[in-house]
Amino acid sequence: MAVQRATNVVWHDGNVGRQERWSKIHGRGATLWFTGLSASGKSTISAALEAALIGRGQPCYRLDGDNIRHGLNRNLGFSAADRAENIRRIGEVSKLFADAGVLSLTAFISPYRADRELVRRLHDDAGLKFIEIYVDAPIAVCETRDPKGMYKRARAGLLKGFTGVDDPYEAPEKPELVLKTGELSVVQSVEVCLSFLEEQGLLLAPRNY
Amino acid sequence: MAVQRATNVVWHDGNVGRQERWSKIHGRGATLWFTGLSASGKSTISAALEAALIGRGQPCYRLDGDNIRHGLNRNLGFSAADRAENIRRIGEVSKLFADAGVLSLTAFISPYRADRELVRRLHDDAGLKFIEIYVDAPIAVCETRDPKGMYKRARAGLLKGFTGVDDPYEAPEKPELVLKTGELSVVQSVEVCLSFLEEQGLLLAPRNY
Repeated sequence: MAVQRATNVVWHDGNVGRQERWSKIHGRGATLWFTGLSASGKSTISAALEAALIGRGQPCYRLDGDNIRHGLNRNLGFSAADRAENIRRIGEVSKLFADAGVLSLTAFISPYRADRELVRRLHDDAGLKFIEIYVDAPIAVCETRDPKGMYKRARAGLLKGFTGVDDPYEAPEKPELVLKTGELSVVQSVEVCLSFLEEQGLLLAPRNY
Repeated sequence: MAVQRATNVVWHDGNVGRQERWSKIHGRGATLWFTGLSASGKSTISAALEAALIGRGQPCYRLDGDNIRHGLNRNLGFSAADRAENIRRIGEVSKLFADAGVLSLTAFISPYRADRELVRRLHDDAGLKFIEIYVDAPIAVCETRDPKGMYKRARAGLLKGFTGVDDPYEAPEKPELVLKTGELSVVQSVEVCLSFLEEQGLLLAPRNY
């Protein structure tokens, strides 16, 4: 295609490069992968972090059970193969958001190390940062919170294969961040995340229109 | 979570609403679904439109064979079921981008009406605009272009199930836009798309940093 100028339009040959894209839309792409037990605080913290980032005007999007299990992954169940495929697809979508210049936050238990490592590799291969955030609360604390009564049902044998009860949670070996949510408040946890993003050059100055 | 203010952080209770999200990141979400024969111009036009939008500072992302077939949909083949699942997943991802406030452009032949209608319904149900753009070039024109020699191989019987040769292309019945690329240049096609986006309130004023 010939390079030419029309009203308000700058024409390019070929594709837009990643750095140019990020800079033009005032975004930075990376994946913040929250992992931890049910009721450890993944959803609460990632939702609060998302609100903080959006409040600053920085593109950001959260993938969680609500928008994934009823959409993209509605045709997956809970077999071992389907659980792995669930995480793989989330990882691929997360990578696309990151490439687009949107900070991608994911909030899934994602209990298996191998599944998370696969997602890390997908990002590495694409030259994108994968930031594993271990939301680390003792299971006793999670069971006390138990907002949906899931632990209670699992302990009663009404739910099978529940992480931490009759299915393992494989804690990250080298996560980029650990949030001990038995000790930190939500506000403190979000501030830890924001500081880390700043150190990594992923936090942009706030802007207003 | 309590409402409180920390440095540069505005705390919210609960989730960020769509309109607030779009306005804060200077984005508008919708899906522009380009459909048409191989070599009709889907990729070229959507890439040029993407470049124009990014050049204006508006969040935008293109899904195409390169970033989907080798990633999210790498485990799909070309059976009837896999083709339908291919389009369904693209539709779901596209919807997530739109929700995030990113204009989502997709460039896939997507030959079957039922598959495209399913994607339209997904967007309708989510209160998001689905803009079907029929990239309409006569097959004779596409065959003359044939940049990858695919038509030649299909005519020689070396490629089976090739759209337009031995598999049907079901043209859209009520597309939001038709681009007759045998008559319009790429620049003209992009301008038609930009005007349509403007009419729909989906084109933001250009900005610079």
